[in-house]
Amino acid sequence: MTPQEAYRWLLEHSRETACLASFARLAGWDQATYTPKKGHAHRAQMQAALAKVLHQRATDPRIGEMLAVVEGSDWLGAPESVEAVNVREWRWAYDLQTKVPERLAVELAQATSEGEAIWQEARPKNDWAGFKPALKKIFGLTRELAEALGYREEPYDALLDQYELGATARQLEPVFAQLRQATVKLLERLEGSARKPNTAILRRFFPQAAQEAFGLEALATLGFDLEAGRLDVVAHPFMQGIGPGDVRLTTRYDEGYFNTGFFSIVHEMGHGLYGQGLLPEHFGTPMGTEISLGMHESQSRTWENLVGRSLGFWRFFWPKAQQYFESLRDVRLEDFHFAVNAVEPSLIRVEADEVTYNLHIMIRFEIELALLRGDLSLDEAPEAWDAKYQAYLGIKAPEIKDGLMQDVHWSAGLIGYFPTYTLGNLYAAQFFAQAEQELGDLEARFERGDFAPLLNWTREKIHHQGSRYWPRDLLRQVTGQDLNPQFLIDYLNRKYTALYGV
Amino acid sequence: MTPQEAYRWLLEHSRETACLASFARLAGWDQATYTPKKGHAHRAQMQAALAKVLHQRATDPRIGEMLAVVEGSDWLGAPESVEAVNVREWRWAYDLQTKVPERLAVELAQATSEGEAIWQEARPKNDWAGFKPALKKIFGLTRELAEALGYREEPYDALLDQYELGATARQLEPVFAQLRQATVKLLERLEGSARKPNTAILRRFFPQAAQEAFGLEALATLGFDLEAGRLDVVAHPFMQGIGPGDVRLTTRYDEGYFNTGFFSIVHEMGHGLYGQGLLPEHFGTPMGTEISLGMHESQSRTWENLVGRSLGFWRFFWPKAQQYFESLRDVRLEDFHFAVNAVEPSLIRVEADEVTYNLHIMIRFEIELALLRGDLSLDEAPEAWDAKYQAYLGIKAPEIKDGLMQDVHWSAGLIGYFPTYTLGNLYAAQFFAQAEQELGDLEARFERGDFAPLLNWTREKIHHQGSRYWPRDLLRQVTGQDLNPQFLIDYLNRKYTALYGV
Repeated sequence: MTPQEAYRWLLEHSRETACLASFARLAGWDQATYTPKKGHAHRAQMQAALAKVLHQRATDPRIGEMLAVVEGSDWLGAPESVEAVNVREWRWAYDLQTKVPERLAVELAQATSEGEAIWQEARPKNDWAGFKPALKKIFGLTRELAEALGYREEPYDALLDQYELGATARQLEPVFAQLRQATVKLLERLEGSARKPNTAILRRFFPQAAQEAFGLEALATLGFDLEAGRLDVVAHPFMQGIGPGDVRLTTRYDEGYFNTGFFSIVHEMGHGLYGQGLLPEHFGTPMGTEISLGMHESQSRTWENLVGRSLGFWRFFWPKAQQYFESLRDVRLEDFHFAVNAVEPSLIRVEADEVTYNLHIMIRFEIELALLRGDLSLDEAPEAWDAKYQAYLGIKAPEIKDGLMQDVHWSAGLIGYFPTYTLGNLYAAQFFAQAEQELGDLEARFERGDFAPLLNWTREKIHHQGSRYWPRDLLRQVTGQDLNPQFLIDYLNRKYTALYGV
Repeated sequence: MTPQEAYRWLLEHSRETACLASFARLAGWDQATYTPKKGHAHRAQMQAALAKVLHQRATDPRIGEMLAVVEGSDWLGAPESVEAVNVREWRWAYDLQTKVPERLAVELAQATSEGEAIWQEARPKNDWAGFKPALKKIFGLTRELAEALGYREEPYDALLDQYELGATARQLEPVFAQLRQATVKLLERLEGSARKPNTAILRRFFPQAAQEAFGLEALATLGFDLEAGRLDVVAHPFMQGIGPGDVRLTTRYDEGYFNTGFFSIVHEMGHGLYGQGLLPEHFGTPMGTEISLGMHESQSRTWENLVGRSLGFWRFFWPKAQQYFESLRDVRLEDFHFAVNAVEPSLIRVEADEVTYNLHIMIRFEIELALLRGDLSLDEAPEAWDAKYQAYLGIKAPEIKDGLMQDVHWSAGLIGYFPTYTLGNLYAAQFFAQAEQELGDLEARFERGDFAPLLNWTREKIHHQGSRYWPRDLLRQVTGQDLNPQFLIDYLNRKYTALYGV
């Protein structure tokens, strides 16, 4: 068999697998939107049957054989050629899939499935004692998983790799530390300011139909193609990319609070633009696939925060907002803009503002890393959690359900996942600074409703690249330098000292 | 390997295949409802990838091996035991799948895919000359298909078998002839009547929201479980059973015509009740699967016509209808009931009333049968079509797009399919007569809103049986006699002579 033939086989196999995986995503979207109440049990059986097919395809030994034929062959071309990138990533995925012994995969699936159920039950009751054994089991199995996967420097890296290719704990630690110190300092200054936003104006009446119409208008204006996507209502918003021409956003509406609906629409749209920006001719191959969760988050945070919470953005959208919402007609633009950028230390990550959000992430990162390294035992974790909230945010959860037990992630086995949220914010700021250097003042453009230059820039520089570069390499490629937290720090300092007058 | 082990393997294989097939149905439903415009090309690729997996599973040679182990073993029990039924039907499906040479399957798929596209294009232009070569090819390949599948008496039976297990042309001919003669006679009498329904009252204004609310109330009242199903809007209504607890109805609304929305809701609900009535513990096996298209149609026609167009039904629903629709408030119940039962020979099958509908079907049956038997050439078919419309319905299509080219079926390869529509009507009348014999006057119950006895009767007698009996055997089992067109003839004569006073 020639390398070309082996490559062709891999291409076909990869594309077909991706088409089958599209069904899993479609069915997942449908579960959150339109599945009737009594249809969920069957849906779980459907997903299990498909997962089995997908697993068989992903671990098909022929993949290994074909890769062996094509790898290292001259035919592949430069390391950044389409073919070389696809082969590199297919190899990575195949090794990831085949390194884990079936026994461990099954035990992990079972432990996390049980873990989630136990968490659901235990959290509202603050039942740490009831939850701890399940969590202990999951952390134990995850440590085994890390060993099976292998790592560069320490077990945590193997976990990170699943979500953020090439990232390591030792790389992240100094970056996060620098961001944490700067954030804590900024937060202290903001808290000392006499100028406070009037967030009550966000708590007026915003009819759902008007929120939807305004959201759809914003999507169209920002460049989301509504003929290649949709917007639906769910309990927990997400973006689901089914495939080329079909990228689905979801949101939820709170008629008594502006931010819930609008900013989740813009956030999910950021993810969706990444999905719509992938090159359709590469669908089903690494070259047509998003490179990492952190990179994905960088796109959602760009549109949610750097664009959607900017003054330029609201200068443009303000007349429309006032048309859609009667309750905003007596509000000043500047007061509204200050209100949607209110900073307030809070206990719950998912409700956190742009400044404090990363502190929530870093606390989780520090704790899961210490647990993995054996520097902390699970028994000590709640206390460590509270101490860090006190130190970084100046507050402490009165109950563990709003403390260590607030997120589903660990019970679902998502360990090494949290850092991708802050990486997203860091990438976003660094990309945005680069885009401004190349395109000039972006806020001035937003003020004129001119969002296309930024979108086109991210399309060309990021979306079209698919998985050509690992995240840090892509960042370096686009911005000319390594990950540097100073971009996010500068952005936050500039924006919030101006807003709070400190 | 023991018969038990072989059976267990078949059971697992069958269930998993059914779970995967659920994805195809869900994605099909989504295509008709919520898929964004630009997502259809990818959806077609998804469906092709899944179809390949399903075909591989359906023709897996291990099925043949396992069947050989279990067939004829004492362990199977009586022919109507769950195990024996499943094995019988698995064998039938496996043979069906494996009898067709791949070359023929591929050519048919291609010819029908092209055929549909050519029909779409040619029909509005009355381009018979452009359509004929494609249709000729499809009939030629279908004749090959019949030979590959094998048949009892003649090639047409092999085609029928795909849709209505065990039916044969020679069985159907006398039954259809008796119905045709009686219908033509009845139609003549109705046309001679001076009493005419005022159908203009159905052409008033019926707001879509009210139609939907009324439709949902009717569904709930009739016994459709809306927690195990949904109702959505599409261009061409259908029912899609995803699996246990998830049975989806669709409809379309015409605000200027009452019948379009309401009767398609009730029709699709009839299909949906069959889906909801299958036993969930048998999902994914023949015992939990509808036996035939004709049997399915018997359920939809029961609720659409025998229930939904009865006077008892409207006596109960009339106060509600008048609440929902302002435009009906000055209408008399009896006039409304007469209007929704108006009989009028027309050219288009899908718009035909309960009396003339079967004549449309029989014309198609007679023509496709004559084509298959070689008694008619495709060149002669349009003339034969017109002659039959003239003879049975007394009208003639001025253009072929409303004549022989009106339906998509033949171009899609659905030859031997049309008879199932009339079989559905025949079964429905025969079942209904039996139900009345066992349960007493059903219309009197409908008048009180008491629809449960009929539903429970059909559940127990028909839905719960799955594929235990072939259609004619099920009919005999439930009604104590063979298919007898006199039930439908008597029902139509009784109802329409009363309405038209003839």
